[in-house]
Amino acid sequence: MPVVAIVGAGLIGQGWAIVFARAGWRVRLYDVDAGRLAEGRDLVQQQLHALQAQGLLRDAAAAAACVETAATLEAALADAVYVQENSPEQVAVKRALFQTLDALAGPETILASSTSSIPASQFTDHLAQRHRCLVAHPVNPPYLVPVVEISGAPWTGEQAISRTRDILAAVGQRPVVVRKEIEGFILNRLQGALLQEAFRLVRDGVASVEDIDTTVKDGLGLRWSFMGPLETIDLNAPGGIADYCARYGAMYASIGASQAECPAWDGTLVDTLSRERREALPAEDLASRRFWRDEQLMRLMRHKQQQSGETNG
Amino acid sequence: MPVVAIVGAGLIGQGWAIVFARAGWRVRLYDVDAGRLAEGRDLVQQQLHALQAQGLLRDAAAAAACVETAATLEAALADAVYVQENSPEQVAVKRALFQTLDALAGPETILASSTSSIPASQFTDHLAQRHRCLVAHPVNPPYLVPVVEISGAPWTGEQAISRTRDILAAVGQRPVVVRKEIEGFILNRLQGALLQEAFRLVRDGVASVEDIDTTVKDGLGLRWSFMGPLETIDLNAPGGIADYCARYGAMYASIGASQAECPAWDGTLVDTLSRERREALPAEDLASRRFWRDEQLMRLMRHKQQQSGETNG
Repeated sequence: MPVVAIVGAGLIGQGWAIVFARAGWRVRLYDVDAGRLAEGRDLVQQQLHALQAQGLLRDAAAAAACVETAATLEAALADAVYVQENSPEQVAVKRALFQTLDALAGPETILASSTSSIPASQFTDHLAQRHRCLVAHPVNPPYLVPVVEISGAPWTGEQAISRTRDILAAVGQRPVVVRKEIEGFILNRLQGALLQEAFRLVRDGVASVEDIDTTVKDGLGLRWSFMGPLETIDLNAPGGIADYCARYGAMYASIGASQAECPAWDGTLVDTLSRERREALPAEDLASRRFWRDEQLMRLMRHKQQQSGETNG
Repeated sequence: MPVVAIVGAGLIGQGWAIVFARAGWRVRLYDVDAGRLAEGRDLVQQQLHALQAQGLLRDAAAAAACVETAATLEAALADAVYVQENSPEQVAVKRALFQTLDALAGPETILASSTSSIPASQFTDHLAQRHRCLVAHPVNPPYLVPVVEISGAPWTGEQAISRTRDILAAVGQRPVVVRKEIEGFILNRLQGALLQEAFRLVRDGVASVEDIDTTVKDGLGLRWSFMGPLETIDLNAPGGIADYCARYGAMYASIGASQAECPAWDGTLVDTLSRERREALPAEDLASRRFWRDEQLMRLMRHKQQQSGETNG
């Protein structure tokens, strides 16, 4: 099986290690901090067994056996066809690290960053082989939320994009391509648009925090969890999406005109949001609710796999 | 069991009849068109059996026996504690119909409209007992997508709102309250905000239609289908939603500033949307895909019921 190097063994690096190990790849996990590296490998193994317990993985021991730690970057990158970098979200850190990666990696090796906020052009412009560098932005945890946003710099090669798409699809992820560098990529731009309207509705006293969540989880979010928003509207008019636009375009234009201004995310508005959430879920229960969320995600993934007849490992 | 009058036996009226019959209410279905009324009752019975076949209803025959047609509005409204109106989306039609309903219904009876686009104040201002009139806007089909938006006029009584919320919750729906009249209520305002950004990304060549749907169905939509967007961000920062706003408010403000302008839903943009959708799904397959969607919705609802230990009938 091919070799992947995971650079940085924190939460995101662990998630990537699980994704590749689950698919049978040989994983070389590296971190500058030896303690974090050992801890990262242990947590990967624990999580692989948790996935097996949830019916999401057939053989956790076999997957765990795919994960090795590497004592040096050189050792991690030897034979790697794909490198996933997970260093802190600082341009200077990534610039230096990518320079090292570019010097050490074989000429065909893809160098991908997990950054959620820094465009590839800001940390790869100075590299000899910058055509094989790009962003592959996961959602946490990537072994439960499969979408990955691939975003190249203007100089990233088409082949690097398409090979990354193929590799990620082969290990069970759902790659999407951001065709131009843009702040927030696709996912956070869509999320932001919806959150801004949710925040407006709370600020203006139109809806409670709870009722906004109910409107999504018992309404919009149901179809979106297996079709997405554009297939949803395509099926919601007799003649498809063009018919939908003709029927409802005027209504959405009118609504859209009232959504141009964004509330500041501070002061009274954040107090209101926080008060309503803490009434629903006290701060001391946040950790256990995150555990519940991940269980729900695992069960939803199993449900979706059953619907599509897919398996992952 | 209590009596509900369903006025209008088209698609939406049928959906409401299923919701109340499933919960064991005695349903009086009425339509000005006797042929549509008979057809509507038949379709309700067929759909109840389909729900049983999907494991979403224990006894379709018992539910079907709850549904009676009424030859006149008077007969439909006799003994009804709740009326759900489903006439065409025309203010004049609704004004006249609500005047009749207000005259015929008992003084405690709630008069609710299914309108998705007309505020209650536009068709109830002239009524003697306008305090018991409101909008209860469902999503289609309401027996698979449980959210219902309750939106009163300024003169709608608090008691009418809270009784409607209790009735809808008792029959298995998920009522939310729109506290001020606003175009699009909550659901279409949230949907519109996200669609406008999706349309911008397609127009600007940033993402394909397919990749936008993938970003939601394999990313954002997973957590939104069981938590909603505000609980999602509450769990995505160590200190909860206030911490999330402090960490990411600046990024979302910057993204938000680039989302103020809305594309027109016509011309080249709609051509692009439609071409990409028709390549993914030819027009002749729209109908069968809608059948697939409803099957997926039924399976997702059964999955969610299993997670929460809830049952509906």
